[in-house]
Amino acid sequence: MRTGVWLVGARGSVATTSVVGALALRAGLTAPTGCVTELPELRGPALPGFTDLVFGGHDVVTTPLTKRAEALAAAGVLPGRLADAVVPDLAEVEASLRPAPTDGGPGDRIAAVVRDLTDFRRRHELDRVVVVNVAATEPAPAPHPAHHDLAALRDALAGPVDVLPASSRYAYAAFTAGCPYVDFTPSTGARLPALVALADERGLPYAGHDGKTGETLLKSVLAPMFAMRHLAVRSWSGTNLLGGGDGATLAEPAANAAKVVSKQRVLAETLGYLPQGGTRIDYVEELGDFKTAWDLVTFAGFLGTGMRMEFTWHGCDSALAAPLVLDLARLTAAAHAAGRRGALAELAFFFKDPLGDTGHALGAQWAVLCDFVAGLHAGVTR
Amino acid sequence: MRTGVWLVGARGSVATTSVVGALALRAGLTAPTGCVTELPELRGPALPGFTDLVFGGHDVVTTPLTKRAEALAAAGVLPGRLADAVVPDLAEVEASLRPAPTDGGPGDRIAAVVRDLTDFRRRHELDRVVVVNVAATEPAPAPHPAHHDLAALRDALAGPVDVLPASSRYAYAAFTAGCPYVDFTPSTGARLPALVALADERGLPYAGHDGKTGETLLKSVLAPMFAMRHLAVRSWSGTNLLGGGDGATLAEPAANAAKVVSKQRVLAETLGYLPQGGTRIDYVEELGDFKTAWDLVTFAGFLGTGMRMEFTWHGCDSALAAPLVLDLARLTAAAHAAGRRGALAELAFFFKDPLGDTGHALGAQWAVLCDFVAGLHAGVTR
Amino acid sequence: MRTGVWLVGARGSVATTSVVGALALRAGLTAPTGCVTELPELRGPALPGFTDLVFGGHDVVTTPLTKRAEALAAAGVLPGRLADAVVPDLAEVEASLRPAPTDGGPGDRIAAVVRDLTDFRRRHELDRVVVVNVAATEPAPAPHPAHHDLAALRDALAGPVDVLPASSRYAYAAFTAGCPYVDFTPSTGARLPALVALADERGLPYAGHDGKTGETLLKSVLAPMFAMRHLAVRSWSGTNLLGGGDGATLAEPAANAAKVVSKQRVLAETLGYLPQGGTRIDYVEELGDFKTAWDLVTFAGFLGTGMRMEFTWHGCDSALAAPLVLDLARLTAAAHAAGRRGALAELAFFFKDPLGDTGHALGAQWAVLCDFVAGLHAGVTR
Amino acid sequence: MRTGVWLVGARGSVATTSVVGALALRAGLTAPTGCVTELPELRGPALPGFTDLVFGGHDVVTTPLTKRAEALAAAGVLPGRLADAVVPDLAEVEASLRPAPTDGGPGDRIAAVVRDLTDFRRRHELDRVVVVNVAATEPAPAPHPAHHDLAALRDALAGPVDVLPASSRYAYAAFTAGCPYVDFTPSTGARLPALVALADERGLPYAGHDGKTGETLLKSVLAPMFAMRHLAVRSWSGTNLLGGGDGATLAEPAANAAKVVSKQRVLAETLGYLPQGGTRIDYVEELGDFKTAWDLVTFAGFLGTGMRMEFTWHGCDSALAAPLVLDLARLTAAAHAAGRRGALAELAFFFKDPLGDTGHALGAQWAVLCDFVAGLHAGVTR
Repeated sequence: MRTGVWLVGARGSVATTSVVGALALRAGLTAPTGCVTELPELRGPALPGFTDLVFGGHDVVTTPLTKRAEALAAAGVLPGRLADAVVPDLAEVEASLRPAPTDGGPGDRIAAVVRDLTDFRRRHELDRVVVVNVAATEPAPAPHPAHHDLAALRDALAGPVDVLPASSRYAYAAFTAGCPYVDFTPSTGARLPALVALADERGLPYAGHDGKTGETLLKSVLAPMFAMRHLAVRSWSGTNLLGGGDGATLAEPAANAAKVVSKQRVLAETLGYLPQGGTRIDYVEELGDFKTAWDLVTFAGFLGTGMRMEFTWHGCDSALAAPLVLDLARLTAAAHAAGRRGALAELAFFFKDPLGDTGHALGAQWAVLCDFVAGLHAGVTR
Repeated sequence: MRTGVWLVGARGSVATTSVVGALALRAGLTAPTGCVTELPELRGPALPGFTDLVFGGHDVVTTPLTKRAEALAAAGVLPGRLADAVVPDLAEVEASLRPAPTDGGPGDRIAAVVRDLTDFRRRHELDRVVVVNVAATEPAPAPHPAHHDLAALRDALAGPVDVLPASSRYAYAAFTAGCPYVDFTPSTGARLPALVALADERGLPYAGHDGKTGETLLKSVLAPMFAMRHLAVRSWSGTNLLGGGDGATLAEPAANAAKVVSKQRVLAETLGYLPQGGTRIDYVEELGDFKTAWDLVTFAGFLGTGMRMEFTWHGCDSALAAPLVLDLARLTAAAHAAGRRGALAELAFFFKDPLGDTGHALGAQWAVLCDFVAGLHAGVTR
Repeated sequence: MRTGVWLVGARGSVATTSVVGALALRAGLTAPTGCVTELPELRGPALPGFTDLVFGGHDVVTTPLTKRAEALAAAGVLPGRLADAVVPDLAEVEASLRPAPTDGGPGDRIAAVVRDLTDFRRRHELDRVVVVNVAATEPAPAPHPAHHDLAALRDALAGPVDVLPASSRYAYAAFTAGCPYVDFTPSTGARLPALVALADERGLPYAGHDGKTGETLLKSVLAPMFAMRHLAVRSWSGTNLLGGGDGATLAEPAANAAKVVSKQRVLAETLGYLPQGGTRIDYVEELGDFKTAWDLVTFAGFLGTGMRMEFTWHGCDSALAAPLVLDLARLTAAAHAAGRRGALAELAFFFKDPLGDTGHALGAQWAVLCDFVAGLHAGVTR
Repeated sequence: MRTGVWLVGARGSVATTSVVGALALRAGLTAPTGCVTELPELRGPALPGFTDLVFGGHDVVTTPLTKRAEALAAAGVLPGRLADAVVPDLAEVEASLRPAPTDGGPGDRIAAVVRDLTDFRRRHELDRVVVVNVAATEPAPAPHPAHHDLAALRDALAGPVDVLPASSRYAYAAFTAGCPYVDFTPSTGARLPALVALADERGLPYAGHDGKTGETLLKSVLAPMFAMRHLAVRSWSGTNLLGGGDGATLAEPAANAAKVVSKQRVLAETLGYLPQGGTRIDYVEELGDFKTAWDLVTFAGFLGTGMRMEFTWHGCDSALAAPLVLDLARLTAAAHAAGRRGALAELAFFFKDPLGDTGHALGAQWAVLCDFVAGLHAGVTR
């Protein structure tokens, strides 16, 4: 099952780490640490192997992948020896990267993306291509009536005005080209009614939103713990200090707001009430690809006695996100192969702001994921 | 369903908080925060109500309960107004407390406990009495052949030498008097083959071991998180600073060792390997009934990238343990009423070192508990 | 040496704690923990005793002091028994509190304050009255030419428009009434050239700005440590979570900005460069009078090796500020008695944003303070 | 002023980092971050330049320095490009390293060290050689009467029995060869009355004990802060998690005990009382050359209100210690050149357990150090 993985933002830290990692796994140079689909509970015949994955993508920048890999090695995100070992394979991936289309109206740019996706699939003789958005987070777009109606959207895209943000243009192009789409960021992507209608029309699955890599991952196990113990969470305040490209983007108030909302959902929905406190994202360039999150939780126990916990999470965002990108590409490809269409709510495990109503408790999300994947494997071996 | 709750260590902080809390709940003076059995998922007709609970117990000290409650209020463990409001009800409980028997040989002391339990049940016209051990942690006892054989144990107990630690004498007495028994501490209690045989002989259920109130509770959600994400935990080091009576006891190397072993099981069994690092318990008198735990976890992600998390838990042990004591008394009573016998493995949710093979992941333990309780309720309403 | 202490914001948490504490000290009910002027290095004959202090003040609210003290006791800021024990003495202080004047133009309101101060001094036969501003932090005022010239300011105050913020009107009134003035908050207070000129004209001392009680106190010892060790601080990020009245005020962006600037000065001036990162202040009502600050410092050592430290400070702002209010009242009174005029730069030890050029290193500030106080004592005993 | 630096434990992490760093500084490849003697307050003509330093030393292991440097680069302690750049210079240092003498009685081994030191001085035409002990921490030796009397010690050393631990044999040899001696570890070294007598007899200076690199450095600024603010420290508990060779050594209970005592002195002597709590050292191999210290301080403020602070220090021991080794070698050489003899109490700034009565407050130690160095510079330029 030859599977294309088309990365929007293909020269960013997450994409580069995903590609280097997949190449290293293919070459047997590293263990699949962090790859959920390599756990005994999920491994199986329905998923394309690492050797079946072929990478391509778009980006607005042109830095060569080998330069990006070197920089990540220097920053401690990748082992230098791995980056060196996969240089020849990286060159091959480099040949499948395309500049993000910038000419003409929105319709022209979407058509260019559709062409790039179709060429990629044909040239590499791929069974399917999964498009994954790992580009920098966008601000929320201005609302527009065409977002709610596919016909109106088609009309609008024929005109000169851009009614869609970039992430949604890629979703539109993916569906048009017959490709499943994964929203790994909090950007709008496929989450507009008109795009949902398009995916339905084409019979394609999609997944999202916003990969769960750090503070929210912890919230998705700690909030259920407080709930299961009937402890009353009084306040939950979080601070996220980020360097790297994502940090700079998220420091923009509009993007920050989008991310923060998606980070708080887990608390309100798991606890059944929203505790006091909020979540901050601050940019600290010197932290590089590492991110430090600090959370303070105050809570009441029996007879109202006040208690507290704090945690600090010092994680490397790319090293946490990259294996999930591979997992999602494999799982979405298998779902497509199995004829699944529409929202893949069973992948809630991977997301801060999941589609569907699986809820935010990691344990429950895990159980749903395991069932889903068992079904995929059973379909293959049947 | 009038249910007696017999507390071994009835004048300690946990017992006093349990009793004051139950009285306050009965009087409608407080909410059942921290009581798991009051969550919508577990509430129902099979469980005795707070008004159905009648308290008694043994202790080696004689400080009046009202004095203990005052001291706990001064230390911030209980609200002062609650302690004041339940003074008349506390006097009633006081009348049901008995000094821990100290005269004669082990057989005589066990017989005295049996008499106290039987009198308590009869005088209060109780349907049953659940014995819960919340006394200070004991060192592990010297092994003895009589621990493995009920007949040999009966012979030994007729002699002058104490082959059982106190917690196990109470378990022996409880079973002899037809009472279910709950091990809320890491002490030996019912976990000797001879005592298991005695419980079987009498058709009684029992539960344990070691209430999960702080650091281990966090481990039981964080370790599965690392496992589900396929992250490789390299080291997990914990420091526990405790004041209060339990702190002083656990500072004794032998008791400390017992507790530490039960704290590490969760890691090895959840992760499938034992990371480097250990757990320390240190006594710091000035922390009083509050406990501070600090844990450092170092782990590897994709391509071996090193990351870390730390947490600090500042909890009030009595406020965390007391509602669980009430939960366990209610659940064990309901299980007994339903004819359950033997180890209550379904109560693993509550324990650091659970009976049976439910595992240590809190989410899985919760699912098992919910099923178990649903079965109890169904039995009642059928 | 009978000394009046006139508190602007006299019914606030800091003021109430200061008054209750001074009364408790006078009655021998507590130890002077937190009072710097009671350390062996500073104690001596030049300072008025706690029995020599007489309290009065203004406030815009009218809640009785005994109610405020009860509330603080309930919140764990004061021991309940102390609040009860000083009730009769509090009633006496209550009689010396005056509503903040609100009628007429700015000149009328200043005149009313001058009358209140003069009456207070006469009625209690005080040698002097020190005015201390502990009211809620104001936003920075709009600049006005009259701020820079005393004659222009006098003209402006005769008109109907308020060119001064409240804190500066109090400073104006204090100097007019012949009283030294202490800025315990980051509000403008006496720090306008026209007010400095007024203090000079009257030959009065003044002190400020912004009592150093938590995060900045730590910065004033940690930043010098990094500097003395020639370690390169790369980033210093701080988060402050505050409940209580001050938290709500500081959550206002304008007031927040004022405070944050005063908090960053210490780093730039101690290190000689400003590291990356910033300071946040967030309001979390449930934290009450307690404040949690978390700071992350990343730094480079020998050969550029990256390292990090974090700290969490969980302090009670009122309990930290109140003894310093008493210290500053005593020290400023002694300076006035000794004929000191102008800025009391020697009191830099107490402030986030100190007058003069003593610098921000706590050890150096301490040495200057000790010398200063030794001089005052020597003047008295000479 | 050609100055030899003779490192006992010359192939350890600290020694290797010191040598690589000095070579890199000499070659202008790095900035002197972490070198206190390169601060404007201390720089000057009395100190030998980095180009004046010549390295030699003893070790019991024989791993080549270039191998050690590579391993440190792989562990993130040194930048790889620096380790590569100084390879030729390292080879030169390698030629001056000698195996630790193991043949014969204690007298023979001391004589061998004296010969090595003398040869080194002569061959490199050095003005002087400073011996610095950076070998692994020893357990405290059994007391022996010869420790108290130089004549008795000389007699004992002529016999077959080892009455001195290794660190003290090196001190004996250093003094015998006319070399100043620096105790950078908590081992016994020169701190025996008989060795003090020997240093006096030879008119040599010495310094120590136990370089202050992490948790104790923080204590030496935080404890004075609490003292200056008259806050009552109720408990101070510390946990140190160490990998690396030092961690394994210190996990030995006897060595651990020595280190812990030296870590607690700062609290008792700065605060004037010893708070509750203790210091733990635990070995966690996976942490490598990095060390994580976590401290919890509980304290009371005004009216007894309880508060707390915690800090986590994540430092690279070698990167913190190595520049201090260079500082101490330069300062001790300058002191020797200036004719100083006996204990160099003015170097307390560098040590956990300093000689003399400078005290433990870092600010005061800094002032003393600045005065001392200013005197050395004045002597040179006079």
